[in-house]
Amino acid sequence: MRTDYCGNINSSYLGQTVTLCGWVNRSRDLGGVIFLDLRDREGVVQVVFDPDLADVFETAISLRNEFCVQLTGLVRARPEGQVNKDMSTGEIEMLGQSLTILNKSAALPLDWNQENSEEQRLKYRYLDLRRPLMSDRLKFRAKVTSTVRGYLENDGFLDIETPILTKATPEGARDYLVPSRTHKGQFFALPQSPQLFKQLLMMSGMDKYYQIVKCFRDEDLRADRQPEFTQIDIETTFLDAEGVMAITEGLIRDLFQKMLSVDLGEFPSMTYADAMRRFGSDKPDLRNPLELTDIADLLKDVEFKVFSGPANDAKGRVAVIRVPGGAKLSRKQIDDYGKFVGIYGAKGLAWMKVNDLAAGMEGLQSPILKFLNEDVAKAIVERSGAQSGDILLFGADSNTVVTEALGALRLKLGEDLELLEGQWKPLWVVDFPMFEEFDGQFHALHHPFTAPRNMTPDELAANPAGALSNAYDMVLNGCELGGGSVRIHKEDMQAKVFSLLGISDEEAEVKFGFLLEALKFGAPPHAGLAFGLDRLVMLMTGATSIRDVMAFPKTNTAACPLTNAPGEANPEQLKELSIQTVIEKKAD
Amino acid sequence: MRTDYCGNINSSYLGQTVTLCGWVNRSRDLGGVIFLDLRDREGVVQVVFDPDLADVFETAISLRNEFCVQLTGLVRARPEGQVNKDMSTGEIEMLGQSLTILNKSAALPLDWNQENSEEQRLKYRYLDLRRPLMSDRLKFRAKVTSTVRGYLENDGFLDIETPILTKATPEGARDYLVPSRTHKGQFFALPQSPQLFKQLLMMSGMDKYYQIVKCFRDEDLRADRQPEFTQIDIETTFLDAEGVMAITEGLIRDLFQKMLSVDLGEFPSMTYADAMRRFGSDKPDLRNPLELTDIADLLKDVEFKVFSGPANDAKGRVAVIRVPGGAKLSRKQIDDYGKFVGIYGAKGLAWMKVNDLAAGMEGLQSPILKFLNEDVAKAIVERSGAQSGDILLFGADSNTVVTEALGALRLKLGEDLELLEGQWKPLWVVDFPMFEEFDGQFHALHHPFTAPRNMTPDELAANPAGALSNAYDMVLNGCELGGGSVRIHKEDMQAKVFSLLGISDEEAEVKFGFLLEALKFGAPPHAGLAFGLDRLVMLMTGATSIRDVMAFPKTNTAACPLTNAPGEANPEQLKELSIQTVIEKKAD
Repeated sequence: MRTDYCGNINSSYLGQTVTLCGWVNRSRDLGGVIFLDLRDREGVVQVVFDPDLADVFETAISLRNEFCVQLTGLVRARPEGQVNKDMSTGEIEMLGQSLTILNKSAALPLDWNQENSEEQRLKYRYLDLRRPLMSDRLKFRAKVTSTVRGYLENDGFLDIETPILTKATPEGARDYLVPSRTHKGQFFALPQSPQLFKQLLMMSGMDKYYQIVKCFRDEDLRADRQPEFTQIDIETTFLDAEGVMAITEGLIRDLFQKMLSVDLGEFPSMTYADAMRRFGSDKPDLRNPLELTDIADLLKDVEFKVFSGPANDAKGRVAVIRVPGGAKLSRKQIDDYGKFVGIYGAKGLAWMKVNDLAAGMEGLQSPILKFLNEDVAKAIVERSGAQSGDILLFGADSNTVVTEALGALRLKLGEDLELLEGQWKPLWVVDFPMFEEFDGQFHALHHPFTAPRNMTPDELAANPAGALSNAYDMVLNGCELGGGSVRIHKEDMQAKVFSLLGISDEEAEVKFGFLLEALKFGAPPHAGLAFGLDRLVMLMTGATSIRDVMAFPKTNTAACPLTNAPGEANPEQLKELSIQTVIEKKAD
Repeated sequence: MRTDYCGNINSSYLGQTVTLCGWVNRSRDLGGVIFLDLRDREGVVQVVFDPDLADVFETAISLRNEFCVQLTGLVRARPEGQVNKDMSTGEIEMLGQSLTILNKSAALPLDWNQENSEEQRLKYRYLDLRRPLMSDRLKFRAKVTSTVRGYLENDGFLDIETPILTKATPEGARDYLVPSRTHKGQFFALPQSPQLFKQLLMMSGMDKYYQIVKCFRDEDLRADRQPEFTQIDIETTFLDAEGVMAITEGLIRDLFQKMLSVDLGEFPSMTYADAMRRFGSDKPDLRNPLELTDIADLLKDVEFKVFSGPANDAKGRVAVIRVPGGAKLSRKQIDDYGKFVGIYGAKGLAWMKVNDLAAGMEGLQSPILKFLNEDVAKAIVERSGAQSGDILLFGADSNTVVTEALGALRLKLGEDLELLEGQWKPLWVVDFPMFEEFDGQFHALHHPFTAPRNMTPDELAANPAGALSNAYDMVLNGCELGGGSVRIHKEDMQAKVFSLLGISDEEAEVKFGFLLEALKFGAPPHAGLAFGLDRLVMLMTGATSIRDVMAFPKTNTAACPLTNAPGEANPEQLKELSIQTVIEKKAD
């Protein structure tokens, strides 16, 4: 029906007659000549209809936005002064010689020149996706997956599919359940990740596995969460953490090079402890130059209890952020930052301006200066590296509160004061603790299949709180792109970790009996990683939500305004599935 | 941990020291020397442990099948007489110099040298997949998907993901349902195919879409059905049936060339009517040389009512299959075939042996000969092309019964008598009827979004029973590899088809309102096709079940013996989902 794409027609086609199919992007009658912008996936081309060609002109008059048409015309140079260097087709125009309306369009429910509500955009997704901004993102995404596949397959990875109808998993989020018809009263779960299946594939000797695969979490949604999302899932045999990190870092570096012509260089590596200490985050944005500086040791003996209390508490922390040039912050601005850190539990935000470094105490300005002697003040200024014109912002509380509050404040200051440097700052975060302790219980920081670093089961049991895992997260610009670990491949270690996590032998048997059994039969050392594809593409395209890089996302109540899913089920079918709905009546 | 794969070590490595990781495939003590076959994904290599290297030898003695080990050794030529030309590693052996047991294995629950039950194979799938036969199939499958992706992406197709949590569809099979937590009492359905989403993508201007995607059907299972299966899903804009057939035929031809070095040539095309008439099937196996020959016109006036009845009935059919050399079939064999066609509703199987063509009526042998005069008998023999030594097998009944019974008989004869010719016989079947009529109702032969051939909505309404669809099925060796069609892209036609299918306006609005609405806004002409990936790989690898080309299939009660899915759900979670299970008590 066509000889080429609209977006491909340029001056190399001059003098040729081509046939195109596409949509009316815009149509104008300018002094008796009709100008039509015809659009397809590859771009827009300008078509001119001359009243001398009466038949075609007649049809052209009837065109409205988004009519779908087939057009044959002659490619000719645009008149001087009408050349548009910003368009790939901007040097030429087409003289319309034949025009067929393939399908008309009713008036559009969306005006593309306005901001439309998320609900409207999703309800008419097929129109929203016609916008070049959106179709370019889907094209970009397709190229990303293709590039990733090429890289991994070239390295010997096999694309192997794992089941979507699986057993419920114990990971953090809620499973989506699927009632079984043949096994009455029982349920499948949709996978939160193919974690155990990919480990079983390593035990099957498949050696190097990857899959670009849908995963499911029935969580309350946020801007960057969706009920179904896509993972680049990777698992390898006989490789250690460094081996997996080398492959996956190479993958991302290759991707940025090919897609964006960006050289990410070698990724620095940072321990979890350093990341929390210096940046108050396990996924630090290294574009932000601000750092936290610990000063508890300087404040143990001051009379100011707000400082000396946490400084003398093993679970306390006292730290400052130095903001270069921050002495110009107003009282109002500082108060607002005080409220901001309150969100994270901080009871206030002490500050100290360094107006003139050379002037000693005279050059400092701070409501808390009266609580500090000169030596202490000097030591704080010196350690923080403060210069004239800087401000120091203090956190003093439990380790958790100070780290979270100053970590968040650091990001906010970076944005507000436009401090970010460089476009792309990747890093690895490593040496995570095996467990977090809360509610009187150990919880796996990654997941219960993560191996500890260099420990026997007995050593792990002797000091679980101090144990480090053999896990690694890849972070880019403050976002976790992916995370992985060396997995446990011995039955005794896996059983020990379950027991430390408070999983009883019975529960372990019911939920993970098959894994414990599989570990008995020569399970190999294995390790892997999973990337969040949606978030990766979002970052790379500069989109602000993963919804903008998915063809048909759900709303934040997990609904699809386009198809009206979810919907009522057929009562017959529910009966066959041996379930019924129970809607609680609202109280009167 | 290793320098190479076991299966890669050949004489080019002679004199080198390499490190390998893998599993003990077999270990034998032959006269004080230990021979070990070490296996990984790429193959098996022979290792020799010499008692002179006492430490290594000591460890080697302790090896049992499926221990996972790391081995360093010297590659040397096998002694003369021990060279195995059938193995890629058969010219060399390794002298084991260092050996580490990475993980031990308990005694295996499966003996690979025996046939194991499906249940056992699936319960210990991670062991079953270690068999080279099985791992080779998964490797083959990965290469198939990679090749398909390469072909399509090279042709401008974009890999775009469509949702797994969708609205219930009206297609034949049962949907799997997923209760929504945020929309109480409502359900998502898992897609039976991404049909409507891929059409919406065409309406979005995405132009060429493909996806290798999981689909779901809650059907009672057969050997070639699984609750979740994988489709190569393709949709295009501005292409007609021929355009889509050219692309997809090229795809399969390229695949066979690259994977099997087989040139499938150009695919012949056959109408549905011809396929049913000549082969009694809409997916004829052209390796089978037998054909059905219609003879009703010859039998309209015979007194034998069994023949003349159907011959004079517009809905009847009388046909024969000529079996070359079939005159040697015994009475018992013929009787068995008579029982066989009974499965399809045939009331008997009349036959006629052509013992000597030259001898006229004398040369014929048949219980029904007495009912036929010489002219009729001669005409039948002549039209069927029977030669001396052949048998003719008759079907006379309704069109449906004769076509199905002789179609099935043709396949059975082809197998029993080993008549199949050639290895690969692809074809296109085209010109399907739009509708099948049964239970007093029209049903879509493909699906309700299939366009008719060259008809207006009014013309379609005037003669729905006679309308042909613009659909095409790709058939290989009697299996439907894929099917597709030009889709309806105009609202009035889509509404007309819904109405002919007995879908009320209200039902159409609830189920397909979004599609009818989308067709209002310049929907382009579009067409596509979907291949069954599992079946394609099954055919190409010579496996007999799609279960053998999937990593983790379900049993035929849709269960997973490995993970014990489906399983009990947490009552708390069911409450959150506003559902409860209803198990009917068995009658006492």
